[in-house]
Amino acid sequence: MKIIRSPREMQVFAESERLRGLRIVLVPTMGYFHEGHLNLMREGRKRGDCLAVSIYVNPAQFAPTEDFESYPRDFERDRKLAEEVGVDVIFSPDNSEMYPEGYQTYVEVEGVTGNLCGISRPRFFRGVATVCAKLFHIVKPHVAVFGKKDFQQLVTIKRMVRDLNMDIEILGVSTTRESDGLAMSSRNVYLTAEERGSALSLSRALRIANDRYEKGERDAALILQQVREFISAHPSARIDYAKICDAETIKDVRKIEGEAVLALAVWIGKTRLIDNHLFGEPLDV
Amino acid sequence: MKIIRSPREMQVFAESERLRGLRIVLVPTMGYFHEGHLNLMREGRKRGDCLAVSIYVNPAQFAPTEDFESYPRDFERDRKLAEEVGVDVIFSPDNSEMYPEGYQTYVEVEGVTGNLCGISRPRFFRGVATVCAKLFHIVKPHVAVFGKKDFQQLVTIKRMVRDLNMDIEILGVSTTRESDGLAMSSRNVYLTAEERGSALSLSRALRIANDRYEKGERDAALILQQVREFISAHPSARIDYAKICDAETIKDVRKIEGEAVLALAVWIGKTRLIDNHLFGEPLDV
Repeated sequence: MKIIRSPREMQVFAESERLRGLRIVLVPTMGYFHEGHLNLMREGRKRGDCLAVSIYVNPAQFAPTEDFESYPRDFERDRKLAEEVGVDVIFSPDNSEMYPEGYQTYVEVEGVTGNLCGISRPRFFRGVATVCAKLFHIVKPHVAVFGKKDFQQLVTIKRMVRDLNMDIEILGVSTTRESDGLAMSSRNVYLTAEERGSALSLSRALRIANDRYEKGERDAALILQQVREFISAHPSARIDYAKICDAETIKDVRKIEGEAVLALAVWIGKTRLIDNHLFGEPLDV
Repeated sequence: MKIIRSPREMQVFAESERLRGLRIVLVPTMGYFHEGHLNLMREGRKRGDCLAVSIYVNPAQFAPTEDFESYPRDFERDRKLAEEVGVDVIFSPDNSEMYPEGYQTYVEVEGVTGNLCGISRPRFFRGVATVCAKLFHIVKPHVAVFGKKDFQQLVTIKRMVRDLNMDIEILGVSTTRESDGLAMSSRNVYLTAEERGSALSLSRALRIANDRYEKGERDAALILQQVREFISAHPSARIDYAKICDAETIKDVRKIEGEAVLALAVWIGKTRLIDNHLFGEPLDV
C-alpha cells in the first residue's frame, strides 16, 4: 500500500494509473476509521482496480467554534485497517499543501444546502464541496464512495458532480450501525456512558417514524411531533433539527410522497450527532 | 473536423483521446472569431495532438442589463475559420444542456475578482470560473489557452486551476491588435465609425503610460492622471476604470514595482472595451 502526502505526486500517480487503463475508486474520509469507513472501502474495492482512500480533516468545513482541533486522529491505526481491507493508496495531505497562502477559490452548491446542516453549519457544505472538488482533481477517480449517513452531503456532492460535469460516478453506501442501532460516527468516541444511551434516541426515532409510515401515515408534521417528543425525553438530548425533506431538493415537505427523507441532528451533551432514513427503504434498527 | 453539441458526447470523445495518449488543447471562446481567437488556436495547435475549441456564449457571465442577447454570433463562419486553422473538434453546447433546470453550483474565486471588472460586473467572474470549470471537466484538456486581453480573467482562471488542483496548464497569449493598435474584440463590431476613432484612446493610453514607465516614472497616481485625462478628451469615451494593479493579486498599487498591470475599461458610446498592459513587457502599439 502506497502512502502519498503530496497532491502533485498523487495526481501524477493517478494519471499514470488512468493511462494504464485502470479504474480508480476514491473513498474520501477524515480518518479515525470505524466499521462504516471500512464498509465504504469494501464497496469501493469491488468497483475498480485502484482503491484510494483520502484521510484529511478539512479545516474549510469546520466553523471556528467546532471541533476541528479535537477531531480524533490516529494515522497508524487507520493505515493498518486500510491495508487489511485492500486499499492500494492512502492520500493524506497537509493543510499547507491543500490551502496554501493566498488560497481563495470555493465551490458553492446553493439550493440543496439551504436547509438542515446548511442552516446549523453555514460554511460547512461550501467546505465539503470545495475539498471534494480538490480531491477529485487530485485523485482523478472514476468512482467516489460516500456514506448515506451524511445524506445531505451525498446529495450536495451528487449535485456538484452533475452541475460541474465532473466525469465521476458517485456511489452512496448504506449507514453502518452498532448492534443496538447507533449510526457509526467518529464522533461517537466523544460520548460518555450515559450519553451513549441517549444517543440511541436518534435511530429509535427513525424506527418510530418508519413504523408510522408503514402503517400509512403521510403527514410530516404528525410524524415529526412524535419524533421530537421521543428524542426530547432523553437526558442531555437537544434537537438541532428534525425534518422531513424531499430527498433531491432537500426542501421541507408537508406530505410524504415521492422520495422523502427524515433527517435528524441532535446534540447529545456537547456532541452533535446526525442520522436519517429514506422512507420506503429498509431500516435495520 | 468534428462538431459536438452534447457535453456527454464530448466527454466520452475526450476520454478516449486521453486513453490513446493524446494531448488535448482547449481554446474556450464565445465565438464570432477574429484574428485574436485564431491566434489562440494557432498557439494551441502547437501544444497538443487534439485541438478543441469551445463556442459558447455563457449566460452565467452576463448581467440582465448586458449584451447576452445581442452578442454577435455566426457559427457557419466560425466553423470555416476553425477548420482552416486546423481545429480538430468544435464543442458548442446548448444552454439547456449546460444549465439544465435545477442547476445550482458555482465556482467563486474571491480575492483576485474583487477589483476592476469584478466591481463593474459583480457576477461576471463567478460565471466565467463556473463555465470554465464545466468546460474543463467536459473537454478534459491538458492545456487551455486564454488571451491576455482579458487579463483579470486569465489571472482568475489560473487561480482557480491552482486552488482546485486542476491538472491543466493555462497558457496566456498576447493580445492581437488591429494595425492601428485597437485590441481585437468581438464587441468592436458594435462601434460606429466615429466611435472606432475614440476606441483608439485605450491602446494609445497604454502607450503613453508605458513611455512614462520607460522614462523611469513609478508613481501609479501620476501615470493614471495622465491616462484618464487623455482618454476623457475623446468624444463618447467614458472611463469605467483605469487602474494600476499587482498582476497576481489584482490589488491597486501606489508604486509600480514587481509585476504590475495597467488595466482599462472604457465605455465608447454603448460599447464597453477593455485593454491592459503589463509594465516591462513589449508593447506593440
